[in-house]
Amino acid sequence: MASLLRDRPASTAAMIAALGDETLLRAALDFEAALARAQAAEGLIPAEAADVIAETCAGARFDIADLAEAAAHAGTLAIPLVFRLRALVAERDGQAAKLVHRGATSQDVADTALMLQAKAAAGLIVDATLTLTNALAGLVERYAATPMLGRTLLQDALPITFGLRAANWLLGIDAALRRFEREATDALILQLGGASGSLAGLEFRVVERVAADLGLGVAPMPWQSRRDGVAGLAGALAILVGAIGKIARDVSLMAQSQVGEAFEPRIEGRGGSSAMDHKRNPTGCQVALSAAIRAPGIAAAIFSGLPQEQERGLGGWQAEAPGLATLFELAHGALAAMTQVIEGLEVDTATMSRNLGAAAVGSDVGQSADLVRRALASYRKER
Amino acid sequence: MASLLRDRPASTAAMIAALGDETLLRAALDFEAALARAQAAEGLIPAEAADVIAETCAGARFDIADLAEAAAHAGTLAIPLVFRLRALVAERDGQAAKLVHRGATSQDVADTALMLQAKAAAGLIVDATLTLTNALAGLVERYAATPMLGRTLLQDALPITFGLRAANWLLGIDAALRRFEREATDALILQLGGASGSLAGLEFRVVERVAADLGLGVAPMPWQSRRDGVAGLAGALAILVGAIGKIARDVSLMAQSQVGEAFEPRIEGRGGSSAMDHKRNPTGCQVALSAAIRAPGIAAAIFSGLPQEQERGLGGWQAEAPGLATLFELAHGALAAMTQVIEGLEVDTATMSRNLGAAAVGSDVGQSADLVRRALASYRKER
Amino acid sequence: MASLLRDRPASTAAMIAALGDETLLRAALDFEAALARAQAAEGLIPAEAADVIAETCAGARFDIADLAEAAAHAGTLAIPLVFRLRALVAERDGQAAKLVHRGATSQDVADTALMLQAKAAAGLIVDATLTLTNALAGLVERYAATPMLGRTLLQDALPITFGLRAANWLLGIDAALRRFEREATDALILQLGGASGSLAGLEFRVVERVAADLGLGVAPMPWQSRRDGVAGLAGALAILVGAIGKIARDVSLMAQSQVGEAFEPRIEGRGGSSAMDHKRNPTGCQVALSAAIRAPGIAAAIFSGLPQEQERGLGGWQAEAPGLATLFELAHGALAAMTQVIEGLEVDTATMSRNLGAAAVGSDVGQSADLVRRALASYRKER
Amino acid sequence: MASLLRDRPASTAAMIAALGDETLLRAALDFEAALARAQAAEGLIPAEAADVIAETCAGARFDIADLAEAAAHAGTLAIPLVFRLRALVAERDGQAAKLVHRGATSQDVADTALMLQAKAAAGLIVDATLTLTNALAGLVERYAATPMLGRTLLQDALPITFGLRAANWLLGIDAALRRFEREATDALILQLGGASGSLAGLEFRVVERVAADLGLGVAPMPWQSRRDGVAGLAGALAILVGAIGKIARDVSLMAQSQVGEAFEPRIEGRGGSSAMDHKRNPTGCQVALSAAIRAPGIAAAIFSGLPQEQERGLGGWQAEAPGLATLFELAHGALAAMTQVIEGLEVDTATMSRNLGAAAVGSDVGQSADLVRRALASYRKER
Repeated sequence: MASLLRDRPASTAAMIAALGDETLLRAALDFEAALARAQAAEGLIPAEAADVIAETCAGARFDIADLAEAAAHAGTLAIPLVFRLRALVAERDGQAAKLVHRGATSQDVADTALMLQAKAAAGLIVDATLTLTNALAGLVERYAATPMLGRTLLQDALPITFGLRAANWLLGIDAALRRFEREATDALILQLGGASGSLAGLEFRVVERVAADLGLGVAPMPWQSRRDGVAGLAGALAILVGAIGKIARDVSLMAQSQVGEAFEPRIEGRGGSSAMDHKRNPTGCQVALSAAIRAPGIAAAIFSGLPQEQERGLGGWQAEAPGLATLFELAHGALAAMTQVIEGLEVDTATMSRNLGAAAVGSDVGQSADLVRRALASYRKER
Repeated sequence: MASLLRDRPASTAAMIAALGDETLLRAALDFEAALARAQAAEGLIPAEAADVIAETCAGARFDIADLAEAAAHAGTLAIPLVFRLRALVAERDGQAAKLVHRGATSQDVADTALMLQAKAAAGLIVDATLTLTNALAGLVERYAATPMLGRTLLQDALPITFGLRAANWLLGIDAALRRFEREATDALILQLGGASGSLAGLEFRVVERVAADLGLGVAPMPWQSRRDGVAGLAGALAILVGAIGKIARDVSLMAQSQVGEAFEPRIEGRGGSSAMDHKRNPTGCQVALSAAIRAPGIAAAIFSGLPQEQERGLGGWQAEAPGLATLFELAHGALAAMTQVIEGLEVDTATMSRNLGAAAVGSDVGQSADLVRRALASYRKER
Repeated sequence: MASLLRDRPASTAAMIAALGDETLLRAALDFEAALARAQAAEGLIPAEAADVIAETCAGARFDIADLAEAAAHAGTLAIPLVFRLRALVAERDGQAAKLVHRGATSQDVADTALMLQAKAAAGLIVDATLTLTNALAGLVERYAATPMLGRTLLQDALPITFGLRAANWLLGIDAALRRFEREATDALILQLGGASGSLAGLEFRVVERVAADLGLGVAPMPWQSRRDGVAGLAGALAILVGAIGKIARDVSLMAQSQVGEAFEPRIEGRGGSSAMDHKRNPTGCQVALSAAIRAPGIAAAIFSGLPQEQERGLGGWQAEAPGLATLFELAHGALAAMTQVIEGLEVDTATMSRNLGAAAVGSDVGQSADLVRRALASYRKER
Repeated sequence: MASLLRDRPASTAAMIAALGDETLLRAALDFEAALARAQAAEGLIPAEAADVIAETCAGARFDIADLAEAAAHAGTLAIPLVFRLRALVAERDGQAAKLVHRGATSQDVADTALMLQAKAAAGLIVDATLTLTNALAGLVERYAATPMLGRTLLQDALPITFGLRAANWLLGIDAALRRFEREATDALILQLGGASGSLAGLEFRVVERVAADLGLGVAPMPWQSRRDGVAGLAGALAILVGAIGKIARDVSLMAQSQVGEAFEPRIEGRGGSSAMDHKRNPTGCQVALSAAIRAPGIAAAIFSGLPQEQERGLGGWQAEAPGLATLFELAHGALAAMTQVIEGLEVDTATMSRNLGAAAVGSDVGQSADLVRRALASYRKER
C-alpha cells in the first residue's frame, strides 16, 4: 500500500482516485455536514449552526499527510478530523463548533465515509462489468458456430464452438454482477448510531435524513458491530474477480504458441519483454490472474473479522476498509484489463480448425448452438 | 477428515450423515437412474433398458472403502462406480449395461451428487437458522427494555438495553440466512453436459427432465467450469458462521466471572473441565467461535479455484467438495450449539444493573426501544 | 470430512490411518499412561497405581462413535475418555482410578495426542518427500543437457534444458522439506500444564519424563495458548504443497496435446475418462493442484486463531486439529501422486526439440548445465 | 492502498517509507548499476560504459506517477524504467545505453528490488521485535511472583502469576522472531537469470558480484518461478503478527472495566473517543488485533500463487509484492503499537489480588516461578 508503482498496475487510475485520500476526506466532511443539516431539520440544533458547519465542511481542506499522522496517533481518523473541523467552525461561530459531530461517534464517520467511497466504487464496477459482458456477448454471437477443440483436464476432448466457451465466460460474469448488485444494495447503508449505537441524543428521523442526503440506504438499526453487509460485498467482489480470472486462464492457454487459437490484441507498448524485444505477453490476463490470486485471502480476512465484540469491535471493523478498497481496486483493474483483451481479441479460426482436425475427435459440436442461444437469452432477460 | 473424534464435536450427527458416504453414493446412483429415465422419455434409449438401470440403481449397494480406494486410483469416483453399476446391470441385461451413464461424464455425476447432498444440507441449515432466529426474537422481546452497559472497543460506553444487543444478533443472522437462501437457489443446479459440456449425444430436454426428477434447478448451459454458484454458497455459509460467531463472542464475554451478565445454560455433562470439577465452560460459544475461525479460509480456497481451465478444470473443482462439506458441517454445528445457548441463556439482570450503575454512565438508553421495534418489524416482514 | 469417498482421493490410505480415530484414541491413552508412570517415578503417586493405569490404558478399547458423541456433548474428548478410563481402572483399583489424569487438563490430552499423530504424520511426509526429491534428482541428471523451449508468462522464451526446469522443481521441494523439518522439530512438543498451565500439583520433571516416554520435545513452559509451533507446521505444509503444485502445473502444461513434451505414466485404470474411453488425464497433477488450492486457506485459518485468550483460548486451538490433519493429508496425497508421476514421467525429447526449432529462438541454453550442476550440489550437500 | 489515511494507522511512517515508491525506484536503479558494474568486472562490457550507467543510475530521478502509469500500461515496471534510463545514459554515451539492463529481464529487476526493500524492512522488523521482547522480559521479571487469576476458556481457573502470562507472550514473540530471521536469511536472495532464467549471455560470477554489491544472498540457480522463499517470509510475518495479537487480546481483556487488571498507558491524544470525552480505548491492542485479522489471508494469497507456470509465471509472482509489503507494514505497526503498550503498561496488582480472592480458587500458583525462570533462561540463551 502507499506505493503507486506497486499498486497502479493492478488497478485503474479511476478506481484508485475513487478510493483515495481526497475522496475519503470529502466523504467524511460530507457526513458531518449532512449530520448537522439533518439535526437542524429535526430541530435538534439551530439552523444557523448547521449552515455554518455545512459551509465549513464544504470549504475545508486539510493536509492529508498531517491528518494521517494524527489519525495514527489517535487511533481513529475522526478525532483529529473533528478537532480540526471544530477549530475552523469556531473561527466563525463558537457555539456551532460545539455542535459539530453532535451525537455521532468515530465509527459513524469511518463507516459512512467507507460506504460513500464504496458507492462510487460500486458504480465503477457495474459500469465496467457491463462493458465486459457487452463485449463478451458480441464475441459469443460472432463465434457461436465456430468449431474448436474442447479441452477437459487440460487434455483434448470433444469439439465445441468457441461461442460456447465464450458463453460460459459471459454467464459467469453476469452471475457475478447480479450477486454484486444485490450485495451492494444490502451493504451501502448509512452508519449512524452514536456512542453505543443506541441513537442517544439523536432520533431515527435524523438517520433517515442523513441517509437521504448522502444517497445511502437505511437499516432498521445501526450496523456498527453487524458486518455481514461488508462481508457480502467483499465476497461478491472476490467471486467477480475469480470469474474474470477464469476468462484470463482460458485466453492465456489459447495464446500459447503451440496452441495459437487466440491472442490478446496488439497494443503499442503493452505486453513487451525487457529481455526479448519481439515478445507479446498476455499482460491483460496477467492482471486478472494476479487479482484472482490475491482477492480470496482478502475476502477471507474480512469474513474472519465478523465476530466483533459487543457494541463496537476492537480490531475487526478496522481491518475491513483496507481490504475492501483493495478488492475494489483489483476488480476494476481486472475488468479493465480483460475488457481490453476481449474487445480486441484476435481469434485464429484457422488454427482452431487445424487443432481440431489433428485431434481426430470428430466434428460433432453437440448442442453448442442451442446452448449459446439459451445463454444469450438468459443474459439478455436479466438486463 | 475421516475422524469422527475430531470432526463430530464441530458439527452435528444429522449434518455429518447428510454429507456422508452413503448419501453420496445414493445421490450418484439417483443421478444415473434419472439420466436413464430421462433419455428413455425422450426416446434416446429403450424404456426397458432405463427400467433395468433405474431398478439396479435403486437396489445397488457397494462397499464404500473399496469404492474409495478405486476412486483414488482412477482419479474420479464415477469410473469405478459406473464400472460396478454396469456389471450389475449386465447381470440382467447386457444391452442396457452399455447404456448406463450414456452421454454423461464423471464430473456430471460428481457435481450433481454434490448438489443433491448440498440440497439436503441446505434444508438442515435453513431449519436450524430459523430455530435460532426464533429463539433470538424471543430474547429480543423479553429484554427489549432491560438496561445494560453498552461496551465499545471492550470499554464501558453508554447504556443500551439487552434487547438492543440481541436485536443486532438477530438482524445479523437473518441477513445471513437471506443471503444463503438466495445463493442456494442459484447454486442448486443440475450438472449435465457430457464430455465437453456441449450435450453431445444428449438434448436439453434430457437436462430438464433429469433436473425435475432430482429436484434441482436448470441453468442455460452446463456449469462444469463456471463455479460461481458453489463459491457463492461457500461465501454465504462463511458469513453465516461469522454472524453466529458474533453472538458467541458476546455471550462468552458476558459470561466472564467479573462481568457475570449472562451464562450458557446448565446442561448435565456439557461444559465441564477435566481439571476443575465445578467449572462451567461456554462450550456452545467455543463451537461457534472455532467454526468462525475455520470457515473463512475454506471459503477462500473455493474462491481461489474459480479460474478453472477451459471446459473442465484440473484441480479447481476437485478442491471444492471437501471444503463445501466442511462449511455445511461447521455452520450446522455452530447453529445447533448457539441455539442451545440462546434458548437456555441465563440472563442476570441484577448484575447488568449493578455493572451499569458502577460505570456511572447515566441511564439514558437512547432510542433502544424504538430500534428494537424496528428490528423486530424488519425481521418479521421478511418471513 | 467423515467421507472416505470425498477424502481418500486427495490423500493416501497410510496418512488417513495415521490421523484416524484409532490412532487418536491410542495417543490419548498413551498420554494418560505416560503421565501416570512419570508421576510414579517422581513419587507423586504410588507405583502400583501407575501400573494399573498404564496397563488399563494399554488394553482399553472404546467405541469410537459413542465416544465421539460424548465428546461432542461434553465439548472435549478428554472428559468422556477419562470418565471411561477411570471406570475401567476402578474395576481393578478404586484408589488408582482417582489418580487417572491427575494434574492434567483436557487440552493437555488433546494437544499431546495431536502432536503424537503429527509426529507419525511428519515421518510419513519426510519419507515421501525424500522419495520425490530422489526421483527428481534422477530426472535432473537424465535431462541435464536436453534442450527445450523455455516459457515465460505462458509464451515462448529462450531455450533451457529440461534438466534446468526439473532442477528448479527439485530445489523447491528440497527447500520446503528443510523448512518442514525445522518446523516439526520446533512444534512436536509435549503439552502438559494442568488447569492453568502452571503445573499446579505437578513438577517440571514430570513434564520431562512424559516427553521422553512419548518421544516428544520439551518447551520451557506449556504452550497451550502459544500456538506458533502449530502455525509454523501448518505454514510449512502449505508451502510444501505449493511446491508440489508447481511441478504439477508444469507437467500438466507439458502434457497438453498441442505441446506434447511430457506425460504422466500410463497406469492401468488411472486417468481414464467416463465419457471418452481412450483419454489419458493428468490425474496425479490434478491431485497436487487440487491440494495446492485447498492448503493455503487452511493454513490461514490456523494463523487466524493465534490470538488466543489468556491461559487457554476459546475456539482458537479447537480450530487447529482438523486443519492440521487436512494439511498433512493433502501433502501426503500430493507427494504420492507426484512421485508416481515423476518416477514414470514419459519425456518426449523429439517433440521438445521440434517445438524448440519451431519457435526459432536459437539454441543457446545459456548456463543451464552449470546451474544444474550447482542445484544438484546444493541438494546433495544438504543431505 | 494508495491511501495514507487508511493505511498509516495500521503501520509506521518508517515502514511505509521503507516500502515506498522512492525506495522501490532506488532499489531498481541500484540493481541496474550493480549489474553493469559486475559485467564490467567480468569483462562482459566495457568499464567505461558501466561507469556511465552506474553514475546515471545514481543520479536518476523519475516522476513516480508518470512511471506508475507507464508501468501499468506496459505490464511491468522494468520496461518504462529501462527505457527512461537508457535515454538518460544515451545523453552521455550511446553505446553504453545499449548495455543498460543487458542480460537481465523485467522480473530480475522486480524481484531484486522487492528483496532490497524486504531487506530494509526485515531490519526494521528485527529491531522492533527485539525492543518488544526486551520490554516483555522486563515485565516478566517485574511480575514473576505477582499472583493473579488464571483464566481458561474465558472462565476463572487456577491462579498463576502475571509473570507467567507475560513469559508466555515473550516466548511466543521470541519464537516468531527466530522463525522470521531464518526465513529472511533464506529469502533475501538476488534474482538474476535473464529471459528464461538460464543466465544466457551472463555468467554465474556476475550473479555473485551483483549479490555481493547489493548485500543479498546467492541461490544455486535463479528462483523466478520457485517462490517458497517469499512464501516462507510471508508466513513468518503472519505468525509474528498473530503472536503480537495474542498479547493484544490478553491486554484488552485485562483492561475491561469489570476486570481492571492492566491498562494501556495514558498517552495524550491516543485512545480517545469522539463520542465520550473521558474514555480511554485500548488503541494499541486495536492496531495489533486488526493486523492479526488481516495478515493470514494475505499470507494465504501468497501461498496460493506458488504453482507458477514454467520459467516465469503469469500472475503468481505479480501477486506477491503488494501482499508482502502489506505484511511488513502490519507487522511493524503491530510491533510499534504493542511495544508502546507493554513499555507503559499500567498493572493494577491490587485488583489482580482482589479478583483472585473473589474467585475462591486458592492461592497455589503451581510452578509459575520455576516456569518463568525457565522461560527467561530460554529467551536469553537464544540471544
